[in-house]
Amino acid sequence: MKQTKNRQWRLASHPIGLIKDSDYKWHEESIPELKDGEVLVRNIYLSLDPANRGWINPATAPHYVKPVSIGEVMRGICIGVIEESTNSQFENGEIVTGLLGWQDYFICDGKGLTSLSLFPRPEKAPLSIYLNVFGMIGLTAYFGLLDIGKPKEGETLVVSAAAGAVGSLVGQIGKLKGCRAIGIAGTEEKCSWITKELGFDAAINYKTESVRDRLKELCPNGIDIYFDNVGGDVLDTALGELNLHARVVICGMISTYNSMKPVSGPHNFVRILTKRALVQGFIVTDYFDRMTEALIDLMSWYSSGKLKYREHIVDGLENAPIAINKLFDGSNKGKLIIKISEEP
Amino acid sequence: MKQTKNRQWRLASHPIGLIKDSDYKWHEESIPELKDGEVLVRNIYLSLDPANRGWINPATAPHYVKPVSIGEVMRGICIGVIEESTNSQFENGEIVTGLLGWQDYFICDGKGLTSLSLFPRPEKAPLSIYLNVFGMIGLTAYFGLLDIGKPKEGETLVVSAAAGAVGSLVGQIGKLKGCRAIGIAGTEEKCSWITKELGFDAAINYKTESVRDRLKELCPNGIDIYFDNVGGDVLDTALGELNLHARVVICGMISTYNSMKPVSGPHNFVRILTKRALVQGFIVTDYFDRMTEALIDLMSWYSSGKLKYREHIVDGLENAPIAINKLFDGSNKGKLIIKISEEP
Repeated sequence: MKQTKNRQWRLASHPIGLIKDSDYKWHEESIPELKDGEVLVRNIYLSLDPANRGWINPATAPHYVKPVSIGEVMRGICIGVIEESTNSQFENGEIVTGLLGWQDYFICDGKGLTSLSLFPRPEKAPLSIYLNVFGMIGLTAYFGLLDIGKPKEGETLVVSAAAGAVGSLVGQIGKLKGCRAIGIAGTEEKCSWITKELGFDAAINYKTESVRDRLKELCPNGIDIYFDNVGGDVLDTALGELNLHARVVICGMISTYNSMKPVSGPHNFVRILTKRALVQGFIVTDYFDRMTEALIDLMSWYSSGKLKYREHIVDGLENAPIAINKLFDGSNKGKLIIKISEEP
Repeated sequence: MKQTKNRQWRLASHPIGLIKDSDYKWHEESIPELKDGEVLVRNIYLSLDPANRGWINPATAPHYVKPVSIGEVMRGICIGVIEESTNSQFENGEIVTGLLGWQDYFICDGKGLTSLSLFPRPEKAPLSIYLNVFGMIGLTAYFGLLDIGKPKEGETLVVSAAAGAVGSLVGQIGKLKGCRAIGIAGTEEKCSWITKELGFDAAINYKTESVRDRLKELCPNGIDIYFDNVGGDVLDTALGELNLHARVVICGMISTYNSMKPVSGPHNFVRILTKRALVQGFIVTDYFDRMTEALIDLMSWYSSGKLKYREHIVDGLENAPIAINKLFDGSNKGKLIIKISEEP
């Protein structure tokens, strides 16, 4: 039975600190008839990512991309399926991805949609893998580590949020390149997962251990590559342990995204000078023209069992505003995804 | 008449804050007879540089190179002349450079000495030019700007300590590469010198103007290259005005070298992420194997009148411990040099 209703989460206010339910407004509207050249996409999986928090800051805050306006449907990357098409470039049943938003349905003239029909998918892998290893997450880990971190055999790689979607891949790719991989995470379960299942050489529980003491112990020659997803104190501590000519990949600063006061800079900034280190911020979209080289490697590693991942799937669009805070309290285990509807 | 006495400044204590006279001890000793293979160098010019301050921190502080020990002759780069040689590689009258120290005479077996006999010297230029445009200073400006900053035609370059030895060359080289060059300095005289004599497009007096307001006004599209010699608040402010894909060259942090308490990190560190910026610390010695390419350009630019410099020469070895603080209170005008003895 064809649905006629589109349920949406729209931005109600720019959150201060953690996202509250009331920062979003639930909205239902009829699905309009398609105009000529348009397609109707039914959203299946919605990706929840730390970067989303930056999208809903007021326009005055530092940001990557144009912030979401009040009243606008919340921006989000989804995997969806074409349910109706009057556009010759897309056919019914085709799987697509794009910024389809926090809603059941997305209508457009085809611009901004990427068809996944040409991308191979390993047998039995759910479509959500395109939001993970074979999507932004995989590309972020791949280019951040290889292009900026430039790992060399025998080097010491430290990753924060190491049990997170990006961090867990970074450590595994680092191992494939011959590095020692040390992960920083926030629970014993996560530390155990990355060392026992993913092959990290060691893990530091930043909630129960001194990150500084453990880094000194685990990296007697210093850190060659620090892949940072968290910012704040952990970044500061890691800067203090850099080896000469270290590379610091600034991928995210999740510890600071909900901060209600100005965030202090790292005291150990001076180490960038004394250790002649490189610090580079990046966003994966800068690498889209090189997507193929990454996907070839990622698919090959995944298919041969060398890249493992896990996903944390929350059922129901209605739960998105609550679920997203799992990223900030660390209660998700793996890539956080909202399942909006069933895979075809 | 041949001197028989060697006067020296030896380190008496690791300074806390600004260097005090009492942090050095004046020492006089006889010049020993040369052993076979040794040379006696008479020091002519001694270079005083911000990095010297880091050399006399206690060994526990972050540092580039091994700190000077208590009782050791103070480390310093000099230009000198061979007065006596029992080493076939050096002959009397040859001009050399190296870490010859804060003293009248330096004796060694030739290791660590670089002969300047093969380096061309423009007519009428004093030997001190090898401590400046054709020495570490020139190489620092050259590689920091070109190799890390990677200037492109039409980009906006901002330089701190812009009237300093390195900064003044950075701005001029930036102009040669087609950039708009904006300098930050601490007196009206310096601001006037860099704009009127050196061709900077604009100058900001950080002591009398709001650096933030002026950068916003002068860099409406943001800063493409920030060449930092000072660290601290000016660095923080500049990070807040970066353009997308900016390059930040961390050459020095003179504002922090005498700090008696832990230095705050830049609050705007997050801009490295949101602007996908590169921040790179460096030391010129990493580029010594590429010295020739730099010297060819620097000599050509200098000879055709495109690179100007000034030097601030203080007479007498005895004045070194007091003179070095000019670097930190900004009262030097140009490259700070101690003249120890006469050019041959």
